[in-house]
Amino acid sequence: MSSSSPFTLLKTDSSSKARAGLLHTRRGDVETPVFMPVGTQATVKAVSPDELRTMGARIILSNTYHLHVRPGEKVIEELGGLHRFMGWDRSILTDSGGFQVFSLSKLRRITEEGVHFQNHLDGTPTFIGPETSMQIQRDLGSDVVMAFDECPPFPCTYEEAEKSLALTTRWEKRSREWWRTQPEEGRPLLFGIVQGSSFGDLRERSARSLVEIGFDGYAVGGVSVGEPEPEMMKAVESSVPFLPEASPRYAMGLGTPPQLVEMVARGVDMFDCVLPTRIARNGTAFTAKGTLNLKNAPFTRDPGPIEEGCTCPACTTFSRAYLRHLVKAEEILGLRLVTLHNLHFYLSLMRKIRESILDGNFAEFRREFVSGYRVHNAVEKDEKLEG
Amino acid sequence: MSSSSPFTLLKTDSSSKARAGLLHTRRGDVETPVFMPVGTQATVKAVSPDELRTMGARIILSNTYHLHVRPGEKVIEELGGLHRFMGWDRSILTDSGGFQVFSLSKLRRITEEGVHFQNHLDGTPTFIGPETSMQIQRDLGSDVVMAFDECPPFPCTYEEAEKSLALTTRWEKRSREWWRTQPEEGRPLLFGIVQGSSFGDLRERSARSLVEIGFDGYAVGGVSVGEPEPEMMKAVESSVPFLPEASPRYAMGLGTPPQLVEMVARGVDMFDCVLPTRIARNGTAFTAKGTLNLKNAPFTRDPGPIEEGCTCPACTTFSRAYLRHLVKAEEILGLRLVTLHNLHFYLSLMRKIRESILDGNFAEFRREFVSGYRVHNAVEKDEKLEG
Repeated sequence: MSSSSPFTLLKTDSSSKARAGLLHTRRGDVETPVFMPVGTQATVKAVSPDELRTMGARIILSNTYHLHVRPGEKVIEELGGLHRFMGWDRSILTDSGGFQVFSLSKLRRITEEGVHFQNHLDGTPTFIGPETSMQIQRDLGSDVVMAFDECPPFPCTYEEAEKSLALTTRWEKRSREWWRTQPEEGRPLLFGIVQGSSFGDLRERSARSLVEIGFDGYAVGGVSVGEPEPEMMKAVESSVPFLPEASPRYAMGLGTPPQLVEMVARGVDMFDCVLPTRIARNGTAFTAKGTLNLKNAPFTRDPGPIEEGCTCPACTTFSRAYLRHLVKAEEILGLRLVTLHNLHFYLSLMRKIRESILDGNFAEFRREFVSGYRVHNAVEKDEKLEG
Repeated sequence: MSSSSPFTLLKTDSSSKARAGLLHTRRGDVETPVFMPVGTQATVKAVSPDELRTMGARIILSNTYHLHVRPGEKVIEELGGLHRFMGWDRSILTDSGGFQVFSLSKLRRITEEGVHFQNHLDGTPTFIGPETSMQIQRDLGSDVVMAFDECPPFPCTYEEAEKSLALTTRWEKRSREWWRTQPEEGRPLLFGIVQGSSFGDLRERSARSLVEIGFDGYAVGGVSVGEPEPEMMKAVESSVPFLPEASPRYAMGLGTPPQLVEMVARGVDMFDCVLPTRIARNGTAFTAKGTLNLKNAPFTRDPGPIEEGCTCPACTTFSRAYLRHLVKAEEILGLRLVTLHNLHFYLSLMRKIRESILDGNFAEFRREFVSGYRVHNAVEKDEKLEG
């Protein structure tokens, strides 16, 4: 772990495990709970770094696997690192590549060393193990590095989950060891990832092992991989009690707005999710009452904004009718504006959650938000979120 | 014509017919020569109104045919007109719909009244004649309205061109008559369109007829429809001498950067073209030396901007290497940034042309620019520009 603490816990809610805190990265402080927009290929889809800054994003996520495959971390390193490459001077968290190796690549062969696979673009034979993953994330210049893990499919048997977890634990330990060889000065944070599928005792075992190894923060992985929502909640509930109060906690690849609120209530500090950017590209916008599909006919002559009172660039200038027209006409400006609205919605939701925790009224906020939000969109329910 | 003159001629170049002037629309003055970014479906593709304002665009073009088909001018009128609909408070010129009726629609039947056709989206039977075109452009709230014309294919026989021109002239006269029925206060400008294909005497006849009818400005149409560049130049050269010095002149759907310079030298004041936005979406960027295809391998590790010294948002922040990555990865931010660069290039070229006319060194600017620009890109040469 870094010599100074990577996390300051400012307040814990009295009605739940919700916390407000500060994550300290080498590029500044990040207020938590926090949502990290996903910038898979060194860009948050359709959005410029300036737009991200304007809407108050302090940290984004980028994908190790994708950047390794294209353009390659050595190209990015030569051009001054990922921050300079993409024009983003705030914090970046990179995932380990594990999830994508298992979900995107072809002809995988898992050994104790790591994973041999053919990449999804041109089938080039590639290998990523814990040390490779660490090296790629270092070359990219990530501020928060994720340990390399195996993500078992859902559902899987107890035996499969247990075997996979044992391998993940050995890989995470090797990630930690590699990371220790790096100069302490300016070293990024390293997070471990709790696995164990839907088995509570494996989640506990995983969390305990990681804490023993010692990381700057702890993620819950293997969630939002197709399991029902109660399973997702259980995976987090079975992990959090065994993670240190003093460390940041991150639930990977989640989720819908009410899921985020519920996860915060269960003690999670950090989130990332493709949902706001992905469904925007289909013309679906978030509001406090649930999603709107802007393609729907009733919006044809609707002069109002996506959501009354919203201060995003889409809502302050453009009508639902115009956005509907753009989406129907497949104009890029349409998905740009809906993407901006959705990211603004997520970032603003996290700010409201944080404020309510600090003000001591999170219980009320949670009750009102979750009961006011209606999940009525098939896209939203069925979306496989991670990656 | 409007009661006050729609155009102020500030200076005519001594070495050519190039002019610097001011076009006066009801939404303000537009410095000429001017390039009008194309916003076919009520948006300049991939670009926001704020971005257009920032790069100094004073007037854009939008397409009557497209907006009539979707979402319909009545929807736009109900929502406060095209300016309010798309969030653009500067001038808008709308084309007549003629070109698109002939290039996009199916099962056309031309009568004296106008054109019966099935639209390109869902085949709905539709009719547009001169009065319909005027009414649609009025409902949209256009600041510069184009008379309804027929655009004959290239090549066509003299007889076809002559017959088509006669019909166009009758249609333009009817456009003018309809327009006179509108209240004079706040009436938009109305431009006539010179046709006549590649036949110099027909171009002359067309220009003379339009001047006799009397319009606020005069366009040269039926260019950039597949003809070789010398034919395009000839079409303009055969038209301009018969158009009034005191009126603005507009060459429709042109062109490459050197073509614009050459057209200015032939006395043209206004241009629109899809080239900068269209080829941007293919990763092709304009520079003073010609186009760059950012997909090319040599840019993989190129830390420089698209063009040294360019002040556009792409060049001031991002490297060729990053833009190449975005284009290769088919990321929307890539085509956004290249589109911004290309529009900035066109707008900035027009400003430089104007300055050189006012400073009395257009001849030098023209010689240096045209000789320095190498047309080496097949996309650029083969592109059918209009529409």
